[in-house]
Amino acid sequence: MTAPADLPKMTYRFLGRSGLQVSAISLGGWLTYGGYTENEKTFSCMKAAYDSGVNFFDCAEGYAGGKSEEVMGEAIRKYSWKRNDLVISTKLYWGNANGDNPVNNNGLSRKHIIEGMSASLKRLGLDYVDLIYAHRPDRHTPMEETVRAFNHLINTGHALYWGTSEWNADEIATAWRFADKLGLIGPVMEQPAYNLLQREKVEKEYAHLYREVGLGLTVFSPLRQGILSGKYRDGVPADSRFAQEQDAFIAGYWKRTGKYAWDGIIKQVNQLQPIADDLGIKMSQLALAWVLKNPNVSSAIIGATSPEQVYENVGAVGAVDKLTPEIMDKIDEILGNKPPAIVARFD
Amino acid sequence: MTAPADLPKMTYRFLGRSGLQVSAISLGGWLTYGGYTENEKTFSCMKAAYDSGVNFFDCAEGYAGGKSEEVMGEAIRKYSWKRNDLVISTKLYWGNANGDNPVNNNGLSRKHIIEGMSASLKRLGLDYVDLIYAHRPDRHTPMEETVRAFNHLINTGHALYWGTSEWNADEIATAWRFADKLGLIGPVMEQPAYNLLQREKVEKEYAHLYREVGLGLTVFSPLRQGILSGKYRDGVPADSRFAQEQDAFIAGYWKRTGKYAWDGIIKQVNQLQPIADDLGIKMSQLALAWVLKNPNVSSAIIGATSPEQVYENVGAVGAVDKLTPEIMDKIDEILGNKPPAIVARFD
Amino acid sequence: MTAPADLPKMTYRFLGRSGLQVSAISLGGWLTYGGYTENEKTFSCMKAAYDSGVNFFDCAEGYAGGKSEEVMGEAIRKYSWKRNDLVISTKLYWGNANGDNPVNNNGLSRKHIIEGMSASLKRLGLDYVDLIYAHRPDRHTPMEETVRAFNHLINTGHALYWGTSEWNADEIATAWRFADKLGLIGPVMEQPAYNLLQREKVEKEYAHLYREVGLGLTVFSPLRQGILSGKYRDGVPADSRFAQEQDAFIAGYWKRTGKYAWDGIIKQVNQLQPIADDLGIKMSQLALAWVLKNPNVSSAIIGATSPEQVYENVGAVGAVDKLTPEIMDKIDEILGNKPPAIVARFD
Amino acid sequence: MTAPADLPKMTYRFLGRSGLQVSAISLGGWLTYGGYTENEKTFSCMKAAYDSGVNFFDCAEGYAGGKSEEVMGEAIRKYSWKRNDLVISTKLYWGNANGDNPVNNNGLSRKHIIEGMSASLKRLGLDYVDLIYAHRPDRHTPMEETVRAFNHLINTGHALYWGTSEWNADEIATAWRFADKLGLIGPVMEQPAYNLLQREKVEKEYAHLYREVGLGLTVFSPLRQGILSGKYRDGVPADSRFAQEQDAFIAGYWKRTGKYAWDGIIKQVNQLQPIADDLGIKMSQLALAWVLKNPNVSSAIIGATSPEQVYENVGAVGAVDKLTPEIMDKIDEILGNKPPAIVARFD
Repeated sequence: MTAPADLPKMTYRFLGRSGLQVSAISLGGWLTYGGYTENEKTFSCMKAAYDSGVNFFDCAEGYAGGKSEEVMGEAIRKYSWKRNDLVISTKLYWGNANGDNPVNNNGLSRKHIIEGMSASLKRLGLDYVDLIYAHRPDRHTPMEETVRAFNHLINTGHALYWGTSEWNADEIATAWRFADKLGLIGPVMEQPAYNLLQREKVEKEYAHLYREVGLGLTVFSPLRQGILSGKYRDGVPADSRFAQEQDAFIAGYWKRTGKYAWDGIIKQVNQLQPIADDLGIKMSQLALAWVLKNPNVSSAIIGATSPEQVYENVGAVGAVDKLTPEIMDKIDEILGNKPPAIVARFD
Repeated sequence: MTAPADLPKMTYRFLGRSGLQVSAISLGGWLTYGGYTENEKTFSCMKAAYDSGVNFFDCAEGYAGGKSEEVMGEAIRKYSWKRNDLVISTKLYWGNANGDNPVNNNGLSRKHIIEGMSASLKRLGLDYVDLIYAHRPDRHTPMEETVRAFNHLINTGHALYWGTSEWNADEIATAWRFADKLGLIGPVMEQPAYNLLQREKVEKEYAHLYREVGLGLTVFSPLRQGILSGKYRDGVPADSRFAQEQDAFIAGYWKRTGKYAWDGIIKQVNQLQPIADDLGIKMSQLALAWVLKNPNVSSAIIGATSPEQVYENVGAVGAVDKLTPEIMDKIDEILGNKPPAIVARFD
Repeated sequence: MTAPADLPKMTYRFLGRSGLQVSAISLGGWLTYGGYTENEKTFSCMKAAYDSGVNFFDCAEGYAGGKSEEVMGEAIRKYSWKRNDLVISTKLYWGNANGDNPVNNNGLSRKHIIEGMSASLKRLGLDYVDLIYAHRPDRHTPMEETVRAFNHLINTGHALYWGTSEWNADEIATAWRFADKLGLIGPVMEQPAYNLLQREKVEKEYAHLYREVGLGLTVFSPLRQGILSGKYRDGVPADSRFAQEQDAFIAGYWKRTGKYAWDGIIKQVNQLQPIADDLGIKMSQLALAWVLKNPNVSSAIIGATSPEQVYENVGAVGAVDKLTPEIMDKIDEILGNKPPAIVARFD
Repeated sequence: MTAPADLPKMTYRFLGRSGLQVSAISLGGWLTYGGYTENEKTFSCMKAAYDSGVNFFDCAEGYAGGKSEEVMGEAIRKYSWKRNDLVISTKLYWGNANGDNPVNNNGLSRKHIIEGMSASLKRLGLDYVDLIYAHRPDRHTPMEETVRAFNHLINTGHALYWGTSEWNADEIATAWRFADKLGLIGPVMEQPAYNLLQREKVEKEYAHLYREVGLGLTVFSPLRQGILSGKYRDGVPADSRFAQEQDAFIAGYWKRTGKYAWDGIIKQVNQLQPIADDLGIKMSQLALAWVLKNPNVSSAIIGATSPEQVYENVGAVGAVDKLTPEIMDKIDEILGNKPPAIVARFD
């Protein structure tokens, strides 16, 4: 499938306070590459993304037991893309694929960060990644050890920037505490979930960090696992991830995120549909454009599983400017989940 | 009134990672000294506290427009207590009492911190306080300026330790970031609300800080404005603060904390009563002992308005050991508000 | 004279990245207090300013041989203004008033900074100033010595913030270099001339510093020595400063600033008059409001010599919002002196 | 062509405060190697320079789309010059040759600095360069990121010294601020245009930096694109660069530098001719000797396109001592563009 004629021009944003630019829409490998999707489909998704101007491809050592990195690396070689034109990321924390004993193949110890990076690069077939993330905080490893180890990766040329994923605000601030104290490089980006239904972390908890450390966000789950695409409008379709709940990983994932009032959420999402209709865009494009409206978001990582979905999602880039302050207010009113403004001096 | 014969011996705890010891129960000046309580009553409360072994008396420039500090200082002179035996605190942020123009008499600029300290010491009639708090975060002043200014107070001998009140965890971590970077002293204590009904901040948000910076807590509102004393069990008595809702300050205070399901809370509190009865202690003592059970709490600040209340509250010190793991679990079950444990490496 | 009924409410701005707030309009002592103006007139100007909400009063050890500081201090005592409500500044560099031998009574050596500060405080009758400026760069004293000496003033409580006046951008950056290297406080504000006719330094030379060091500006000469009040429209009036050219100081001052095409400037200023007329404001108010339109300006220092002039100038605060982008463009077109935008990456 | 018998002995100068010595005359690759000049001619120019004692050869990733580096590297191999005897430089900023997407192949992000260096070394066929320049300031990348990335190049052995080209004085000072703060290496040299007609940046703007950071200059355009060779004395010859104005790059270059009074400049240059004649040197030699007379100039980069020109230019080395104070004054008088001396303490 070729790109639709009306595909908007990709925009690029600086990754927080860094000098690196990432495409506003990026493609993620979770649950897909090397996992639920056959390789050929993954390749066609990556090609559609690249052809749309996407330069940032996101992965993790823990995705599909390491297979995700292998397939991603294969695609880069298959299409002979130039390394300089790409922003490749991976994440370290769950490295069971790298050994038989979980003891030192997980977490953020110096040993796992260095060994995990090496194993990831081998799977990717690359000399370095642009971005390396701490996939979760590790409360058993001293922060100083973790900060030093990520700087080791940068100093040895295996990564260019480091960041975090799903860390608490105070943990990011603490990482910078040690970075500053030791004259080292602090984490420049965080990868949280962010979408119309999950706003607290990005809009409230991290609020001071954008100013204090110049934090950039590469957000995942912009469509809330598809809920915001509107596809559950009338129930759960047979081929959706929810229907695959027998799968241990997804089941566990949903268990962790907790139960929520499913019906209420679907109802809210359905109320957003007329707004999308009025703008002449799809529900998923409204959801993505809304995420990109937040200036602290450097990139929204999509998990598209077909070229069509990639193009549809990239279409959201052209819809960002359609979201006027009035429409943003209307969305807030429907959702009722806008975090209160930060208390200032004279509040 | 003299101290009851069975008054337990006061215990002292280190203020976080510092070498300073504060009494487990301390007396606060909010809304009382210089405000809702006549001076003589304040004096007798302070004396009862001192006689019970309380060494820590808490105040703020913003309490009762500065009068709270004046009355507290008067009491110290009246009873000729030795300065060394006391741990005196005050807090800076709302310093309208110090000038006519609010512009530079509020917040945490270097100007207000230095001028506010000077005005507070004058009102207290003291050369220095032991603890100086930033009464709130000031998001308009750079953290570095604030950290430097509190260190200036310490360097000039006007305060011995500095801390925060109602700051976010990431703001405390950021203050330490600048303190470490500049070789300065970081905030050693935080003063949040903490009680059976308000647990999130102390048990979840600050969780990493106890280890990371050795944070100590001097918690206020251990009885949730009297709700946990059981006195609202059958409604709102005429002489309680709730009945004074015509008062603009209280009304405003409750408005800020938001509406909550009053009935549900009273019901929960009433369910705790049998536990107190079984232990042979008062409901307020159960609530205070529960607060002191948390090893991260250095001191619980009570707002007693009569010597009787002081003695009753101090009685809680003797009840801490009665709270067995089984009783603590039972309380958690009744309240259903225990924050989930922090995710560790293999969760 | 009492304040006119339609005097706008004063606005306050943070001084660069600091937590201190200064009034948008401030009163300066150059050539006036203790100099060309009798004391009573100075007092009435200061009172008119204070009554208008002005909180920032600017002075220098070199103004009127130290007399300017004396008269300013006298006014503060005369009106019993509260110290906390005021932002008082002075500047060190030309301290001939402090001794007989110019050798060590000028410049920015540690000796002169410490001795000059002491002499200024004595003349002002104050324990500290809020702002202390290096009145010029001193290319004979190492930057490190100067940075350390100004920090000494802050550490000893004689000043709260330090800054510069008429320094080059690279000198300010170099001061921060030593401040950072030594963990000291850098200069937070600069005092340049800034007005419709002198834009280069503020709009071009300092451009990066607003971001790099959070520089705030307290600008002098917002009316270009009265030229922008329109009073030279038809020639030089007998009572103006230009007519006093026999005076050595003024003559020297004009000599230093160089010759310029007097006629051309007057012509340009006269072209601005219709814009002021259309907005229903005075020419001087247009000029001041234009200065305040620049967000990097924390305060515009006026040199008014009568209460009427003070009120007229304060009136400019209410005119800032009247300067629409269209009007700003029109002004740029008339003057033709807008510095080109800073070259960015893809220019 | 062999070197003329009377060719003066090359002199070598320390590169600013560093311990590296560069030849007073050096050869640059802009617009020539790999571009307007055939390779064989480039080789013969480089050989003539090398034979004249030139040890410093200057290049950039942006010259002729990377071809300039390739041809320069080829020459080094062709003549089997010893690596230790050469000072090789290149510059990073415009790296479009390195990829298809301009987004991360330009500017001074960590990504481009590291990837650009790698691509340049590959084109040059070298393991390291002696000097690596930031070809322009990048106002979108934080200075700290840029300073760290250039240090990374030095730490990994890909470059020995780093510097800047056409940066503002305050940007160089800011780079040193971060270098000092982090204990890193600051930029030791700057590459500006400097010649009889363009003096402001070198003689005024950078004035403090020679002392503050020990800045060395490798100046380009010493003959002002040939204007100072006197070849436009009677108009624009057909084979000159000006005649090639149809070329988009040159046209764009002149557009950026702005229009100037061509006739006036030619007139001034013609007035300098008698001085050259009196000294028995060529006009171009006078211009080059004048540049070298400035002790802050470490090397003047010539853009000769024939061995004859190289020898002629090297001849200027022998003329430096002929420029007496009287002649220097006479030149200043003719040009009228000497920046005023820096204001010192008692000015």
